[in-house]
Amino acid sequence: MSDPKVEEILAPLRASVKEQGDLVRKLKEENAPDLDIKKAVAELKARKKVLEDKELSLAPTEELFDRAKMEDLIKRRFFYDQSFAIYGGITGQFDFGPMGCALKSNMIQLWRKYFILQEQMLEVDCSILTPEPVLKASGHVERFADLMTKDVKTGECFRLDHLIKAHLEKIKSEKNTKLELKSEIDDILVKLDGMTAQEMSNLMERFNMKSPISGNDLSPPIEFNLMFNTQIGPSGLVKGFLRPETAQGIFVNFKRLLEFNQGRLPFAAAQIGNSFRNEISPRSGLLRVREFTMCEIEHFCDSKDHPKFESVKDTNMLLYSASNQEQGKPAEVLTIGEAVAKGMVNNETLGYFMARIHLFLLAVGIDSAKLRFRQHMSNEMAHYACDCWDAECLSSYGWIECVGCADRSAYDLTQHTRATGVKLAAEKKLPAPKQVEVIEAVPNKAAIGKEFKKDAKIINDALALMNACSLEDMQNKLDSDSEYILTTPAGEFKLTSNLVSVKKTQKTVHVEEIIPSVIEPSFGVGRILYCILEHNFRMREGDEQRTYFSLPPTVAPMKCAVLPLSGNAEFQPFVRDLSMELTDVDVSHKVDDSSGSIGRRYARTDELGVPYAVTVDFDTIKEPHTVTLRERDSMGQVRLPIADVPFVVRDLSNSKVTWANIENKYPKFEQQESKGAAA
Amino acid sequence: MSDPKVEEILAPLRASVKEQGDLVRKLKEENAPDLDIKKAVAELKARKKVLEDKELSLAPTEELFDRAKMEDLIKRRFFYDQSFAIYGGITGQFDFGPMGCALKSNMIQLWRKYFILQEQMLEVDCSILTPEPVLKASGHVERFADLMTKDVKTGECFRLDHLIKAHLEKIKSEKNTKLELKSEIDDILVKLDGMTAQEMSNLMERFNMKSPISGNDLSPPIEFNLMFNTQIGPSGLVKGFLRPETAQGIFVNFKRLLEFNQGRLPFAAAQIGNSFRNEISPRSGLLRVREFTMCEIEHFCDSKDHPKFESVKDTNMLLYSASNQEQGKPAEVLTIGEAVAKGMVNNETLGYFMARIHLFLLAVGIDSAKLRFRQHMSNEMAHYACDCWDAECLSSYGWIECVGCADRSAYDLTQHTRATGVKLAAEKKLPAPKQVEVIEAVPNKAAIGKEFKKDAKIINDALALMNACSLEDMQNKLDSDSEYILTTPAGEFKLTSNLVSVKKTQKTVHVEEIIPSVIEPSFGVGRILYCILEHNFRMREGDEQRTYFSLPPTVAPMKCAVLPLSGNAEFQPFVRDLSMELTDVDVSHKVDDSSGSIGRRYARTDELGVPYAVTVDFDTIKEPHTVTLRERDSMGQVRLPIADVPFVVRDLSNSKVTWANIENKYPKFEQQESKGAAA
Repeated sequence: MSDPKVEEILAPLRASVKEQGDLVRKLKEENAPDLDIKKAVAELKARKKVLEDKELSLAPTEELFDRAKMEDLIKRRFFYDQSFAIYGGITGQFDFGPMGCALKSNMIQLWRKYFILQEQMLEVDCSILTPEPVLKASGHVERFADLMTKDVKTGECFRLDHLIKAHLEKIKSEKNTKLELKSEIDDILVKLDGMTAQEMSNLMERFNMKSPISGNDLSPPIEFNLMFNTQIGPSGLVKGFLRPETAQGIFVNFKRLLEFNQGRLPFAAAQIGNSFRNEISPRSGLLRVREFTMCEIEHFCDSKDHPKFESVKDTNMLLYSASNQEQGKPAEVLTIGEAVAKGMVNNETLGYFMARIHLFLLAVGIDSAKLRFRQHMSNEMAHYACDCWDAECLSSYGWIECVGCADRSAYDLTQHTRATGVKLAAEKKLPAPKQVEVIEAVPNKAAIGKEFKKDAKIINDALALMNACSLEDMQNKLDSDSEYILTTPAGEFKLTSNLVSVKKTQKTVHVEEIIPSVIEPSFGVGRILYCILEHNFRMREGDEQRTYFSLPPTVAPMKCAVLPLSGNAEFQPFVRDLSMELTDVDVSHKVDDSSGSIGRRYARTDELGVPYAVTVDFDTIKEPHTVTLRERDSMGQVRLPIADVPFVVRDLSNSKVTWANIENKYPKFEQQESKGAAA
Repeated sequence: MSDPKVEEILAPLRASVKEQGDLVRKLKEENAPDLDIKKAVAELKARKKVLEDKELSLAPTEELFDRAKMEDLIKRRFFYDQSFAIYGGITGQFDFGPMGCALKSNMIQLWRKYFILQEQMLEVDCSILTPEPVLKASGHVERFADLMTKDVKTGECFRLDHLIKAHLEKIKSEKNTKLELKSEIDDILVKLDGMTAQEMSNLMERFNMKSPISGNDLSPPIEFNLMFNTQIGPSGLVKGFLRPETAQGIFVNFKRLLEFNQGRLPFAAAQIGNSFRNEISPRSGLLRVREFTMCEIEHFCDSKDHPKFESVKDTNMLLYSASNQEQGKPAEVLTIGEAVAKGMVNNETLGYFMARIHLFLLAVGIDSAKLRFRQHMSNEMAHYACDCWDAECLSSYGWIECVGCADRSAYDLTQHTRATGVKLAAEKKLPAPKQVEVIEAVPNKAAIGKEFKKDAKIINDALALMNACSLEDMQNKLDSDSEYILTTPAGEFKLTSNLVSVKKTQKTVHVEEIIPSVIEPSFGVGRILYCILEHNFRMREGDEQRTYFSLPPTVAPMKCAVLPLSGNAEFQPFVRDLSMELTDVDVSHKVDDSSGSIGRRYARTDELGVPYAVTVDFDTIKEPHTVTLRERDSMGQVRLPIADVPFVVRDLSNSKVTWANIENKYPKFEQQESKGAAA
């Protein structure tokens, strides 16, 4: 990105972004009308997109990536494929075959080691089926929606932004479209992401959009909630959803988890599991699907310093701050220590997790040159978040968000406290006791019980949860109007002075109550897996047909293949015994005793991403019994005693030794493989 | 069970079962009317139940099991608990807390090692959301239902058998109920399981049953399908279900898996994942829930011999054959080799899996004295199964089915082939080529295309799938009536001689087509986990308040606790370093530096089922740095160098060494623990 020629081309685009970024900042400082700021931000995003696209198109393409070829290999060797294909398939759903499943499961095991074991997190496993009130409190029932439009006759649905994009691109590509309109369309396309339903509706009208399939009229924009719904139990009355994220399961268990941690902060809970989103039009293979595995961490803390930050502070990372994005500057490499010191990354805990995410992604095979952390700009952050960085991987689909790392503050715990009346908070011992003024509601329980019967409990709970502000307010209302309207989850209740009063007292307190902040690293397993495959897809030099996955041994679906040179019966006992010994030391492997030359079988194990292959041949039968061991990427081979193989492969797979160590220890085996492969 | 006094009491009950078993056999031999056989079988089941209940009540109770006490511990230490409790909870759904989740995950990892790794199975990970046609083909849409009844006013639902049982038990317990009626009720209760909807409806009428909650009238019996339904995609038109088992995901992928296995049989595929059943009234904690994890294996084979049967044939198992059940005899211990040789277990492959299941269950902590394999009697087997054995664990709820092991024959593959027209079969090379008569439909594709337009493909596909029988039939119909009605998944079509003919030819074939048989071991993870907890729940002698779980180290949620004797700052570096070193060798552990005497903290780690505890004390600070290591069950302690701890605990946890080995190797540490505990 520092090629002077490239920078020359990008300079005017950078300047244009910066100009707009400055304008946005100015408008914000001046407290300009919200609409003006929104417009300016949309324009800023548009300019940013132009700059990014140009940057990507100019980036050196070290190698030619052929997506069709990779997808062919993925399908042919059943890493994954569309679910229910013999029934015509369902879009947005995928089945993982043996290799994809093993890769996924190895990745998750490593994740468990990296986060749960090393950080001593509390792992939980919560229900997928979630009753409606939980997701109302979290905001998903109201807000978790995309805009769509329906064919008024057939009922077919289209995701609105996709439809508009396709329609406009078609107009743009037509011969007799005027240049002016083309450039206007370009402008619309980049702003599409931030448009309101009304703005999109206007576009539909202006360009007279119809169903691309039937040509029928389309409905006005409809908000479509992305959660799958069902009924829990036989009555049909308990509405439920398939969870759209695993996080809520942790939040609703906060009290039990805090108790398990003996009441102390900070602690982190984690969950690995499936979530569901009823996408209107799934696309891009594993990148936008209806059913997916997530690994989520909720780190609950009162201070955002982190005791282990020191251990990661020198990690170099490619960071793309909001400020750089606004000013048209590129992402920059710096250590996480510098980023936190500068205030670019909000706090040590966020920085610590970002560094750990970075290290984990490299360990599972993400290419460090194709990994960056991008900070959300203030306008794209969830309303509850105070800082948010996405780990993005560069793929043939562009930069893909694979891990989100957000500071969610106290939003979720507060919401669930409000909805249930159960206080989700921790207590912290004060360094010294202190005198505080306590203001509290004093309910006349007998009178309330008499007047409100079964609602009395709700009212008493709500009164107990009132904060100082609302108590002052109640006091004033009771004094002035002789009544106060109490709002509870179950509705409003009118209270009068004979039912409740407000009391202020001095109290000595030894603890303070804290609603902890939450830092949430959230991993999309399918997306990471797809990027690992892209980053590790290779072709043999000079033979484009020989493609393979250069997967790190730790996550490779199997660690080694055992290949008898031929069907000779004398090889069988050696193959069988070796397979048993590999099993004993937990090395996953595959015996490939099918016919086919050894070269062809090497090519097959390469396709599966298997890093090592052991060949049993005629020399194996003689004493001392030896075999060849081949490494996938270099295709180098050594000759070693068969008894050494299990431990050598185990240690290679756990990264306890390197292939170079093994090449030093054992004699090289010099047979030309390419001949075999051609045979 | 061989106590002569007990046998004396049981003898008349055994005789009564045998008498009825003989009757059933006789009726079957005589091809008696179906209804008569059904009645006799219901009576047989009734007598069997009386015998079993008596047997259980007479079994020696080695120790007093206190379920309430165990459930208190499970809840208090958050092994698991009701989901969404702060929202009032949902019955039949549970969240696993840190300890339950780790226990579950360790059990699953061991399962993966035991089955997938050791047997080189093909693990897959398929979609949970399943479109309707798949579950129509499998029979679930039509048959996967329970009977319920609704309060006609409030709509409240009751599972019909539960309702009838509760109602009759209430009548039975009433003072003025006549003895005769009481004994009739007893009889009804044991037959309830096998009753039809009409029979249950008659009972409701006869006893004038009303809603036990409101006293309102009840609806007639309704079949309630136990699958959760939803819509896939935004149109609302694609009906889908949450899968009720993981097996179907494997069957629909059979072709790809066979191809992955290079076209060869036998092979096994496996899946670990969640399934869902919308139980009408969930109960018994983890034993009957709405959302649960399963581990399922589908072993596809053409021959039912098993190459590794030899390795397990001497495994002693408690087997309860259908014949023993019918004859009122008890379960008997024999080796699986004997059982297969006798024909009690149908074949080697089934026997091999039963033995492996047995060994796995013992490894995860099931008590061998509380484990039996019970064969399904012919009347309780699914219509497609040819032999089926359940691994049952004895719990305070009685014998619980934890693993099913069924021979499903070719049922599922045949069903999906019929529904989709995609042939799910393997090809097997014949020892020598052979001449066969081939009979096939010869469609006049042009004429069919002209007549049936878009349906032509469906008709051609259906013709290609016809078997010899139906082809002969078509030939005859075409000859006699000049027409033939073809049934396809898309409806019926009338074919005439100008559209299709039947051709017979001699052909040399080199392969034969095989629809493989399927042996299916299916593990209910939650049920096994519950039984493990029951079988390992202990109280310290002389102190009923000190309860703990004696879990095997392999599955224990954490392998060790690290306890500094006090808050002394000098202990901290030792604790920190030891924790890091344990992490390095992947030993999960917990540092407990909370206040509380060492004895109290030992008691706490015992409650969590942690097998080892390391205490850092004043002697640790001196050179040579040593610590104490304590074993949970014996409470024995040794003193060893701190540097040895990580490897010792790792090897103990992997069962590479035993506690006896460690006690031999290191000096005993003799401090009295009970004093500490009392402090």
